[in-house]
Amino acid sequence: MPEKPLILISNDDGITAKGIRFLVEAMLEIGEVVVFAPDSPQSGMGHAITIHSPLKMRPSDIFGENVEAYECSGTPADCIKLAKHYLQKRQQVPDLVVSGINHGSNTSISILYSGTMSAAIEASIEGFPAIGFSLASYDEKADFSHTKEAVKNIVHQVLQSGLPYGTALNVNFPKKQEKPPKGIRICRQARAKWQEIFDERTDPYDRNYLWLTGKFVNKDKGEDTDEWAIQNNYISVVPCLFDLTAHHTISFFNEEWTI
Amino acid sequence: MPEKPLILISNDDGITAKGIRFLVEAMLEIGEVVVFAPDSPQSGMGHAITIHSPLKMRPSDIFGENVEAYECSGTPADCIKLAKHYLQKRQQVPDLVVSGINHGSNTSISILYSGTMSAAIEASIEGFPAIGFSLASYDEKADFSHTKEAVKNIVHQVLQSGLPYGTALNVNFPKKQEKPPKGIRICRQARAKWQEIFDERTDPYDRNYLWLTGKFVNKDKGEDTDEWAIQNNYISVVPCLFDLTAHHTISFFNEEWTI
Repeated sequence: MPEKPLILISNDDGITAKGIRFLVEAMLEIGEVVVFAPDSPQSGMGHAITIHSPLKMRPSDIFGENVEAYECSGTPADCIKLAKHYLQKRQQVPDLVVSGINHGSNTSISILYSGTMSAAIEASIEGFPAIGFSLASYDEKADFSHTKEAVKNIVHQVLQSGLPYGTALNVNFPKKQEKPPKGIRICRQARAKWQEIFDERTDPYDRNYLWLTGKFVNKDKGEDTDEWAIQNNYISVVPCLFDLTAHHTISFFNEEWTI
Repeated sequence: MPEKPLILISNDDGITAKGIRFLVEAMLEIGEVVVFAPDSPQSGMGHAITIHSPLKMRPSDIFGENVEAYECSGTPADCIKLAKHYLQKRQQVPDLVVSGINHGSNTSISILYSGTMSAAIEASIEGFPAIGFSLASYDEKADFSHTKEAVKNIVHQVLQSGLPYGTALNVNFPKKQEKPPKGIRICRQARAKWQEIFDERTDPYDRNYLWLTGKFVNKDKGEDTDEWAIQNNYISVVPCLFDLTAHHTISFFNEEWTI
């Protein structure tokens, strides 16, 4: 483990969110910090990147004079690409990339829509150890205090033992409860999904529009899932891949297909 | 296989793209078609969804009077959610969802940034058999003619034998060459990536901005990859998961972690 590791921080709620401020403070107790975060909320941006318009980035002193920070006009994945570009210019490579702490859970299928995790996964494509942190509370003023020790412990552990080839971690914290979290569980992504609800309205010009909302529905009864963990006041850790190949099904196609 | 299957079509290049027109025509030879496609180009949108602004959708006669089509203001994933909502209202469920044909390759890591594949993966989350089609040519006027037979064959095969649980197909066609494609190969996602190049410029107000561009770098020498296939004039088919869990690494964490 490097003595003073270089930790790159991003998020998807934007540079002014409470969650990233909390994460920056926790990481300053471990290493040197550099922040590349979106200048506006990017929730639900998935792994989007900006190719049809230019990107802007401006230095920010939002975390105080001692923290080098930039706010970027793009998505979380853009932020990681920009950060890599800027660090490379001065021959630096992050020892770790952390993203979050997201205001809202990113368990189960939410990982696909999550800007928080896209930053971590983008970093893992580059070979950087990477962790996305999320809290199961959408409250802008959410209380993150119960996550600090575990965030630091997980970061220390990753800096020490590394991550298996081609993985990034998706860490979700339960909302603060009376009792502290019962511990950390290594989980699989629950097979749950968002059941959409479209709120249909009419605009002042008599045209229809719809707001996408949804209800999270979990029919996965496994006790080894991330959803089970946070529902039971555990911290869930899911190792995630950027190789989406369903390797175990290749023989199905080779056997069944006649074309 | 249903006699007249209901085929839902989307894409990420937008409803006016040549690729979706080609796909609609091919699918009309197989079943009943309904189109929900973005009203503007959505390349690089990954699995983004629209939650901070409302969505609009308008009927479109772009494919002629006999094809029910809608153009939507959102992302490809939004289009699938909207389509599901509208079809559900009249008790319909698609027998198949196809997306594309994308102007540009979506092999390897591009799947994560691809709006084409996000539509297919969104559909697979709903349990619909789903296929994303892409052509290795970014040309707006690209020649899709060599893909038609294979597109129809793959669709027939999927309607007949289904897809393994929790998978969607990522199909990539080589650019049209003198000789027709050599055949179909079931592949894994190549371990390759985009090496970013930022084109830094100054705007008329003396502010810096950057355009994200990149070079695709493939160091994966495997001959079982999608990249190898299309480089060698084969059609690549990669079965893809929406469960990102690195299941094979869970024992690593249970063994190594001391926290």
